[in-house]
Amino acid sequence: MPKDPNWNKETAPVPAEGERLDKLGRKGYRIIQNTKTFCFGIDAVLLADFARISPKDTVLDLGCGNGILPLLLAARGKGSRFTGIEIQEQQAELARRNAALNGLQDRFEVLSADLRQLSAQLKAASFDAVISNPPYMKKNSGLLNPESAKAIARHEICCELEDILREASRVLKTGGSLFLVYRCWRMAELLAGLPACGLAAKRLRPVYSSPESEGELVLLEARKGGAEGLTVLPPLILYESPGVFSREVMQIYRDDPVLSKEEET
Amino acid sequence: MPKDPNWNKETAPVPAEGERLDKLGRKGYRIIQNTKTFCFGIDAVLLADFARISPKDTVLDLGCGNGILPLLLAARGKGSRFTGIEIQEQQAELARRNAALNGLQDRFEVLSADLRQLSAQLKAASFDAVISNPPYMKKNSGLLNPESAKAIARHEICCELEDILREASRVLKTGGSLFLVYRCWRMAELLAGLPACGLAAKRLRPVYSSPESEGELVLLEARKGGAEGLTVLPPLILYESPGVFSREVMQIYRDDPVLSKEEET
Repeated sequence: MPKDPNWNKETAPVPAEGERLDKLGRKGYRIIQNTKTFCFGIDAVLLADFARISPKDTVLDLGCGNGILPLLLAARGKGSRFTGIEIQEQQAELARRNAALNGLQDRFEVLSADLRQLSAQLKAASFDAVISNPPYMKKNSGLLNPESAKAIARHEICCELEDILREASRVLKTGGSLFLVYRCWRMAELLAGLPACGLAAKRLRPVYSSPESEGELVLLEARKGGAEGLTVLPPLILYESPGVFSREVMQIYRDDPVLSKEEET
Repeated sequence: MPKDPNWNKETAPVPAEGERLDKLGRKGYRIIQNTKTFCFGIDAVLLADFARISPKDTVLDLGCGNGILPLLLAARGKGSRFTGIEIQEQQAELARRNAALNGLQDRFEVLSADLRQLSAQLKAASFDAVISNPPYMKKNSGLLNPESAKAIARHEICCELEDILREASRVLKTGGSLFLVYRCWRMAELLAGLPACGLAAKRLRPVYSSPESEGELVLLEARKGGAEGLTVLPPLILYESPGVFSREVMQIYRDDPVLSKEEET
């Protein structure tokens, strides 16, 4: 199934206990996910579709988890080289295995690191683009187990929004963009935090379940050193009727990852 | 036609040359507009509909022009007493005539004043709500005649966004809200400017011409001393097809002002 010439089924990592192998469709890419820690959702798929990244761009993923965003971008021909930062060693290791699984080990490097302390490892103004699906819940809101991998992915335990914005701005070249998916609930904080980091909101797309529902997600492109002036894109409606994806979402999925929970046979 | 018992057709001001009298529908309210300076548009109607103002609230309109917002609010039973600030004497006088025309002279006071210098006239923390349809174009963008009344209404000649936010926050009681209509193009600046003024974005509604078009307007409620956490409301779509208002916009107009360019007969 995988068509990448570097991919070698014999040597590629295989799912261990508690893991599953999902197809990503395009290019035959696949991803190993740990069902107990973090499995990607529609937010990652929408962000990879939203991001304007050229084939030559170098891309940093802040908080890359199991590596889903670089995989989705590479599958779409967006980006040349990817660096993923991940504080959870188990997730970082999974991301490395996923890079190898798809023959991307030479293009996708994963650093086990705290994104608040990257200055020694990553030079300033060294990336064309930064992408992130950051934790969106406040540290102490509805937190059951602050040690759990799921909690770290969702809550601001290891980094806060401003850490993401500050570090993104530091490593971006002037004119380079940060692409984020975030919760509408915190959109005001997100936009308010940009100017102090030298970032300007340039494209924003609100995401709704239905045309009558309140906004859930927001997709944002912020440019380092960009001028003021924001384009608010048409609303992205997820469902045509309960449980039935809208035509646009179907198109985004058709264009890219076929979500499948079947294990490889 | 006007049902307000205080209204007296004999003594009410009538349109002069260059002016026209428009019906506002509900309660028989009418408005004199100067066709050479400023006539209200759909943004004022949407803002009056969007604003959550109780019948007992005192309301300040920053840059009230011909008084359209207090009239629309009063017609909807929103607000008890209104104060309008208007730097252009000709517009302020028109607002006073419009207050009298609708029997609101005891509830709607108009101050000819610069909203940047109100501290002597308006006490801090003295209003329940503030409403504004501020100029949305930068001072030097596409400006033909900086002296013209139209230019002052649309361009940041006499006040900038941060003047509006700062003054709104100063005069609002804690827990009181500022209601604004603004351009999507400047939404990021708007949200970024709130925290420094002690305002928190609470409700935001993007307004689109069609479901496929880029956003045009944004309706915003920001609360003085409010906690973080923003509700993004469903997109408001203006047109069902070119030139045909959507059902929701028809409902907003039906509920309130019937736009009519006929003069009183």
